[in-house]
Amino acid sequence: MNFELITTDTHSKARAGKITTDHGEIATPIFMPVGTVGSVKAVTQEQLRDAVQAQIILGNTYHLYLRPGLEVLSKAGGLHKFNGWNRPILTDSGGYQVFSLAANRKIKEEGVVFQSHIDGSRHLFTPENVMDIQRTIGADIIMAFDECPPYPSEYRYARKSMDLTHRWLDRCIQRLKDTQPAYGHEQTLFPIVQGSTYKDLRKASAEYIAGRGCAGNAIGGLSVGEPEQEMYEMCGLVCEILPTEKPRYLMGVGTPWNILENIALGVDMFDCVMPTRNGRNGMLFTWNGVINIKNKKWATDFTPIDEHSACFATRDYTKAYLRHLFVAGEILGMTLASIHNLAFYLELVTEARKQILQGTFASWKASMVNQLKTRL
Amino acid sequence: MNFELITTDTHSKARAGKITTDHGEIATPIFMPVGTVGSVKAVTQEQLRDAVQAQIILGNTYHLYLRPGLEVLSKAGGLHKFNGWNRPILTDSGGYQVFSLAANRKIKEEGVVFQSHIDGSRHLFTPENVMDIQRTIGADIIMAFDECPPYPSEYRYARKSMDLTHRWLDRCIQRLKDTQPAYGHEQTLFPIVQGSTYKDLRKASAEYIAGRGCAGNAIGGLSVGEPEQEMYEMCGLVCEILPTEKPRYLMGVGTPWNILENIALGVDMFDCVMPTRNGRNGMLFTWNGVINIKNKKWATDFTPIDEHSACFATRDYTKAYLRHLFVAGEILGMTLASIHNLAFYLELVTEARKQILQGTFASWKASMVNQLKTRL
Repeated sequence: MNFELITTDTHSKARAGKITTDHGEIATPIFMPVGTVGSVKAVTQEQLRDAVQAQIILGNTYHLYLRPGLEVLSKAGGLHKFNGWNRPILTDSGGYQVFSLAANRKIKEEGVVFQSHIDGSRHLFTPENVMDIQRTIGADIIMAFDECPPYPSEYRYARKSMDLTHRWLDRCIQRLKDTQPAYGHEQTLFPIVQGSTYKDLRKASAEYIAGRGCAGNAIGGLSVGEPEQEMYEMCGLVCEILPTEKPRYLMGVGTPWNILENIALGVDMFDCVMPTRNGRNGMLFTWNGVINIKNKKWATDFTPIDEHSACFATRDYTKAYLRHLFVAGEILGMTLASIHNLAFYLELVTEARKQILQGTFASWKASMVNQLKTRL
Repeated sequence: MNFELITTDTHSKARAGKITTDHGEIATPIFMPVGTVGSVKAVTQEQLRDAVQAQIILGNTYHLYLRPGLEVLSKAGGLHKFNGWNRPILTDSGGYQVFSLAANRKIKEEGVVFQSHIDGSRHLFTPENVMDIQRTIGADIIMAFDECPPYPSEYRYARKSMDLTHRWLDRCIQRLKDTQPAYGHEQTLFPIVQGSTYKDLRKASAEYIAGRGCAGNAIGGLSVGEPEQEMYEMCGLVCEILPTEKPRYLMGVGTPWNILENIALGVDMFDCVMPTRNGRNGMLFTWNGVINIKNKKWATDFTPIDEHSACFATRDYTKAYLRHLFVAGEILGMTLASIHNLAFYLELVTEARKQILQGTFASWKASMVNQLKTRL
């Protein structure tokens, strides 16, 4: 994997760059749609490529390990072949899901013992076997195994958890040195900065992570319930420490305005379930603000969902029709809302990149944030 | 509407033809995907046009009348504008749904009083207002208001019901004479043959319907639980009586082999929820036979769903991936299965038409029927 930093904004820390992987290029800043179980929910791979114009998607190691499981993924020749998405893929480490979804999890130095949320079966995730699992899934970018402490966490716990995450990172790095990619293409490890909302811990973690010399770095443990200002403060502090010549990935963030604010702090990569999950509940993000499409006010509004978008789901269907689909409980409503929201998120980062390249990002961002938050 | 009968098979009653409407042409025999509430479930209009290659879709008057309702449909400029499908649309009369879905229905000479299955509200359907409702929906082909008796029905009831359907038909015809299309394009009425499974009633009904001189004719009340042989017998008897120079539409039928057998009897048009409803439950129809994609045997089958199909949903995804989507409860599974099944149904009637045109339909049909029924 190669990262080329093309330009940095003069009025903010925003950056435009380009990541090159064996499955193709990614223009940054980028938003990565989440394909939890090997499918971005309610969207076909063709729609993801042509309508959303996604450049990279995410897979969740925890989910894929449980279903379809490693035997199927291995026989398929990895996730790219299994789901037919031949552009870059990133997998998380399963750490976050083990803490948010699994039952009876128990953290030890060795790793985490947990029970599947599907059938209650017992499993062990260690830094080593999580690297092996991600080898088998075959993503282009793979994440270190970490513990993501909840918000709020006590200082003692946050520090202990951060230290464990750092020790686990060293074991991940060693395991990758000892093993080879399963399918020939390169797999690049991103370590994860933790430290909850404590500045000194975030600083220590960022320095530790930066010191590992990995090709890209991630910021975890944010957007887990803390106030937005605290997220921005932690993210800004960490971005100051992480090396400029490597991509920075802020995990699990967020709203359109969160994304613009964090781009301004120097983040290059984002993922979030919000455009799909909220989309399936009828919440639409647009250039004019936020729409609850179930609202009666849209019943006879025969204008497109967003007149500024080129996406077919946005352009070819009216608000009145989409509202009808949600009121009638039609699956097509979830599909169209998901495609619209994802296409909007991709348009948002594409436009941000354009503004960075032409030196107008900071003022553009300032004018956009309130607009994007408006409830229509 | 115009119907051109291009050829009739020499070894069966199968016909190839062409229907021309103000929204475009339909090559017959044709299968019409069912878009109950203005959406073919889980499929976008783009997929319906490009992947399924649907030429005409159905809307259900009962559902559309309740949701989104006539005010919205009228303001939208009709269903074509509302859902963005600009090819031909056919609407049923609501008769079948009133009897199968609504609560506390009461049949009188005037019409049917019923309660909505959604909110229990009381409504009255009469031949006259059902014509008015279909004017407002704006379909190209509209159906007469009929009573569809259940199977089995006693002879007395079936005859009484048939007579009522005939009297209602005359009121439908009169109402259409007294009113104009709402949006400028032509709307063509198809009357419906009833008579349960009684030969003399079917004969009497077909003669009555044929005598009305409508531009196309439909056969209702079949595929409601009767044995397949009885369906074929009734359908064959009716097709002998209905005029050859007008299209014949067999309502609500059926499996792929049902469709081939009824084409052989002289039917030109079909609709059925089977490809979408069964698809959403993991049942796939292919040129090789029927697949239950949830079955464990497909877990590591990395071949396409059907190697004989050109549809992307069929060609670009493997059986193993589709099985995984169903096991994991992913919406994408329902979407891909629906698109695959609909594309297959359209391929089936397209191939049947080709065989009719080249004079090989009867032998081809004989060789296909058992193949299509095979459980894979």
